[in-house]
Amino acid sequence: MEFSSKILEKAVAEIAQLPGIGKRTALRLALHLLKQPSEQSEFLTTAIMKMRTEIKFCQSCHNISDTDCCEICANPNRNHALVCVVEDVRDVMAIENTGQYRGVYHVLGGKISPIDGVGPSQLKIATLIDKVKQGEVSEVIFALSPTMEGDTTNFYIYRQIKEFGIVTSSIARGIAVGDELEYADEVTLGRSILNRIPFENSLKTP
Amino acid sequence: MEFSSKILEKAVAEIAQLPGIGKRTALRLALHLLKQPSEQSEFLTTAIMKMRTEIKFCQSCHNISDTDCCEICANPNRNHALVCVVEDVRDVMAIENTGQYRGVYHVLGGKISPIDGVGPSQLKIATLIDKVKQGEVSEVIFALSPTMEGDTTNFYIYRQIKEFGIVTSSIARGIAVGDELEYADEVTLGRSILNRIPFENSLKTP
Repeated sequence: MEFSSKILEKAVAEIAQLPGIGKRTALRLALHLLKQPSEQSEFLTTAIMKMRTEIKFCQSCHNISDTDCCEICANPNRNHALVCVVEDVRDVMAIENTGQYRGVYHVLGGKISPIDGVGPSQLKIATLIDKVKQGEVSEVIFALSPTMEGDTTNFYIYRQIKEFGIVTSSIARGIAVGDELEYADEVTLGRSILNRIPFENSLKTP
Repeated sequence: MEFSSKILEKAVAEIAQLPGIGKRTALRLALHLLKQPSEQSEFLTTAIMKMRTEIKFCQSCHNISDTDCCEICANPNRNHALVCVVEDVRDVMAIENTGQYRGVYHVLGGKISPIDGVGPSQLKIATLIDKVKQGEVSEVIFALSPTMEGDTTNFYIYRQIKEFGIVTSSIARGIAVGDELEYADEVTLGRSILNRIPFENSLKTP
């Protein structure tokens, strides 16, 4: 692309650094901002810098928070002995949206993925093990995505906490509500037969 | 979506103001910036604000420029009597990329579109008419997208400049190179027969 303005080119290059945004989309976004009143750009950039400099991570669960201890960990009505291990803050939001969970979380900040250069030391695993060691936890629920990386991470953590004799569980995997059986993949369908549940449980609705 | 941080919520809301970016994508981008070194957010926001405050529009053709007169208009080797009317700066870049055009441009900044509330007065049409009036222009090439709005805009301008007796032309419309005839729409195919060109001309390649 030939730019008539170096300043525009620089802005487009920076916007195109964002994941999933190519040069063309970046140019479209830049031209949109140029068309809008300059306040919109100001609000946008101020909000981004405020987020980048002021946001904290909860000292206990590593969830994103405005304070040193997030709202969930600070809530005395939640069961602090029940810990749900998730990949990132989006998973916390997804589970909170269901309204089905009254325990607390532990946000790893990613999954073990050698291809992407992410090893166990880059994740918040040590603090989880510490919590379990100190006897604060009675059950750990693994709620990572059921991918190769997710399973690897689950197993890595499981091996280190099993000696403490606490309950470990995984979120249920199987056919999603509303899915057609014939389109389900073999592994999911096969496991859903092996891990079948009492019929009465399948009637439970949130 | 339930946010654990008001600061994050605000940043996501601002990012989601951008066209084509929903709340989920905005959250993904925000979390990406949080994972990266803070310099990336700084570079991004600085580049956006620099663009928004320092970019100028060429006084002659209204193209985006770092200076009062854009590089194309300032180039004495270009034919200033040949003016190509385009919608926005992306069209200038697309035509410049072909390397086939040695005239100058006139960037309208949009198309007449009553549905979107865009009338002729919001576009840079008056300055184009002025240029033609002052006898600076020998040919105007209409290069707006061949949509209802593009055709309306072309015709609106055409009616005002035809009295000055200059040449007016439109970029060729027809079957794109590499397209299958059977999949072409009727209007395009019909017009491409009505506006057929001498066979020798069809052999021209850039």
